[in-house]
Amino acid sequence: MENIKIGIWGFGAMGSGMANMLLNKKGVEIVAICDRNKARVGKDMYEVLGLERGDREEVIIKSNPEEVFTEKCADVVLLATDSFTKGAFEKIKFILERKMNVISTAEEMAYPYAQEAELAKKIDEIAKENGVSVLGTGINPGFVLDLLILALTGTCENVEHIKAVRVNDLSPFGHAVMVEQGVGVTVDEFNKGVEDGSIAGHVGFPESIKMITDGIGWDLEKVEQTREAIVSNVYRESKYAKVEAGNVAGCRQCGYGYVNGEVKIEMEHPQQILPHLEGVDTGDYIWIKGNPNITLQIKPEIPGGIGTIAMCVNSIPHVINARPGLKTMLDIPVPRAIMGDMRDLIEIRECECCCD
Amino acid sequence: MENIKIGIWGFGAMGSGMANMLLNKKGVEIVAICDRNKARVGKDMYEVLGLERGDREEVIIKSNPEEVFTEKCADVVLLATDSFTKGAFEKIKFILERKMNVISTAEEMAYPYAQEAELAKKIDEIAKENGVSVLGTGINPGFVLDLLILALTGTCENVEHIKAVRVNDLSPFGHAVMVEQGVGVTVDEFNKGVEDGSIAGHVGFPESIKMITDGIGWDLEKVEQTREAIVSNVYRESKYAKVEAGNVAGCRQCGYGYVNGEVKIEMEHPQQILPHLEGVDTGDYIWIKGNPNITLQIKPEIPGGIGTIAMCVNSIPHVINARPGLKTMLDIPVPRAIMGDMRDLIEIRECECCCD
Repeated sequence: MENIKIGIWGFGAMGSGMANMLLNKKGVEIVAICDRNKARVGKDMYEVLGLERGDREEVIIKSNPEEVFTEKCADVVLLATDSFTKGAFEKIKFILERKMNVISTAEEMAYPYAQEAELAKKIDEIAKENGVSVLGTGINPGFVLDLLILALTGTCENVEHIKAVRVNDLSPFGHAVMVEQGVGVTVDEFNKGVEDGSIAGHVGFPESIKMITDGIGWDLEKVEQTREAIVSNVYRESKYAKVEAGNVAGCRQCGYGYVNGEVKIEMEHPQQILPHLEGVDTGDYIWIKGNPNITLQIKPEIPGGIGTIAMCVNSIPHVINARPGLKTMLDIPVPRAIMGDMRDLIEIRECECCCD
Repeated sequence: MENIKIGIWGFGAMGSGMANMLLNKKGVEIVAICDRNKARVGKDMYEVLGLERGDREEVIIKSNPEEVFTEKCADVVLLATDSFTKGAFEKIKFILERKMNVISTAEEMAYPYAQEAELAKKIDEIAKENGVSVLGTGINPGFVLDLLILALTGTCENVEHIKAVRVNDLSPFGHAVMVEQGVGVTVDEFNKGVEDGSIAGHVGFPESIKMITDGIGWDLEKVEQTREAIVSNVYRESKYAKVEAGNVAGCRQCGYGYVNGEVKIEMEHPQQILPHLEGVDTGDYIWIKGNPNITLQIKPEIPGGIGTIAMCVNSIPHVINARPGLKTMLDIPVPRAIMGDMRDLIEIRECECCCD
C-alpha cells in the first residue's frame, strides 16, 4: 500500500505544526502545501521548518490553490486558514470538488450546524456528490469542552446538568492572540473592543454546546455568551504582552445553553497570561450532574496548540474511513495517538458501494 | 418509525439494571427476556423489577433461548451472562444466527483479540455472514482504563508511557464479588485462592492493555499481572463482609503491558471494601507521558454498576449503525447519554449495500 498523501492549506503555527508531526509518523507523506505568506511562498517545506531535507523530495510551498491541489493529489487536505465556516467554505468546496477529504481547524467547523446550518448542508451535499468527507476538529472545540464531556456521559443513565471550565495560560501565544483576547489594554478599551467585535474572545461555545445537546438528545433553545475583563491585581509580563496592575490580563468568556427554559450547560473559559501570578491553577474541569455524578479534572490543561495539531493529524485515518459527507466528532471513532504505521488504520472494504 | 426492539439475556444485576434504564428511555422497548434463575422464570418483567406495569404489555421471562429469541425478534440483544468469551461464545453465535445485533457485558468481549483471537475471528465471520454486529463493553474494560485513555491520547503528538489507577469501593457489591476478590479472608487463604483461581480479581487488564496498544499502534509483546492482598489495619464491616484487622479487605491487581522489552502501560486496580477507613480516596487516575503530558483524575471513581449498564444501553444505536462484524470501542463513535428519542440516533442509509 502506498503512503497516505496529505495536503496542507495554511502554513502558520497550526499548518506547520501538523507538518512537523506528520514528518515523525510512518506510512504518511506530505505532497502539497498552499500558503499565501510571502515569506514562505516558493520555499521548500523543510527549509521553512528548519529541518534537514536529506534525500527526501522537496515540497515547494505555493500560493495558488489551483496549482497546488489537483484532483485526488492527496487523500486528505488539512485546512488551517480560518476560524469561521463562512471564511473556510469556498476552500472546503474547492478541495471536495477535487475529490479529496478535508480536515478543518476552523472552530465553527467543529459543529457548523450550530451557527451555519445552511452552509453545513451545502458542505454535506458537495462532499457526498464527490464521495469524500469533511471534519472540523481541534482541542476546543473538538475535544475538551465537547467530545470529552460526551464520552463521560456515555457512562450515565441520565444527565441533568453539565458545567465545564477550561483555565489556560495565553503566554506562549503571539501578538494576534493578545489583541483578540484584549491582553494588556485598560478595562475601558476592553469593553469597547468587546462591543465593536475587535476583542473576539473564544470562538466555539455555540459549537461545543450544540454538539453536546445534539449528541445527547436535548433540544437546545438558545446559547448566551458573556465576555468580561480579567483585571489583574499584579503586574504581569510575558514575551508578547505587558499588563499593568488594574489593566486586563485576558478575557473570561462564559457560555450558557438553554433547554426547556433552563440553563442545562454552563461553560467558562478564562484566557489570560500568567494566571499563576495570582494563584490560579490552569486546568480542564468537568462536572456532570446526573446518575452518576462525575467530577473530572486535568491539571494542567491539555495545551491548545499541540492539542489542536494532534487532534487534526490523529483524525486522518477516521476521515478516510468515514462514509462520505460532513462529519463531526459525534460520527467518527475517537481519534487516538498514532504510534505505528498510519496505513494500518485504513479500513479495507470488501466491496465498492455507492455509499462507501 | 417503530420503536427499537431490545432483547435481554441474563436478568441479574446488570440485565435488570439495563431494563430499568431502558424503561425510562424514548423510542425503545424490551420485547424478550431470557434468564435461568428459577425465582424469575415465568414472571412478568415489571413484577420482577417491582414496577407498575400499567397498560404496558407483559414481558414474560423465559428460560429457553429457542423460545425467547426468534429470528429478528429484536434489533439488539443485551447479553449479560458471562465474564469470559468462551462462556459467552455459543450464546453470541445463537443470537447472531438469528440475525440480531449483540452487546455483551463479558469483560473479555471488550477486546476478545487479547486472549481469544480464534473465537474473535469466528464471531466476526458469523456476524458478517448474518449482516449484524457484536460489541463488548462496560465501564472497565470498555471505558475507564481503555477508551478514556485512548481518547486522551488523541490530543497527543506522541505517547511514551501510560499509567492508570482505578480505586474503587466494593461495599455495594454482593456475596459473589466478596468471594472473587477475597474480602474478609486471611492472607494465607487469599494467597491460596489466587493460586487455585478461586480469587479471580479483576477480569480485563489484558483486554484494556491490548485495546490501547492496538489502538495507538504499539506492538504488544506480553501482559503480566499480579494480585496481592490489601491487608486491613482496621476492622471493616459492610453489608456483605466483615474484615478483621490483619485480614484481607480486597485485592490489589496490577497489569503491565510490554512493548519492545519495556513496560509501556501500567495499570493498578485495588478493589476493597471501605477504603476511606484508611484514608484512601476512591477515584480514576490517568497519567500519560508524551507530548503533551496529561494528568487526569475523576473523584470519586465512575461507579461500576451504573457505568456498565449505561455503557451497554448507550451503545445500542452505534451497534445498530455499525457495519457488520465484531466491533470494539475502537470502531464505533463514542457512546453518550441518550436523553432524547433513541430512534433519532439511527442512521438512515440511502442505499442497501452488501457491506452495510
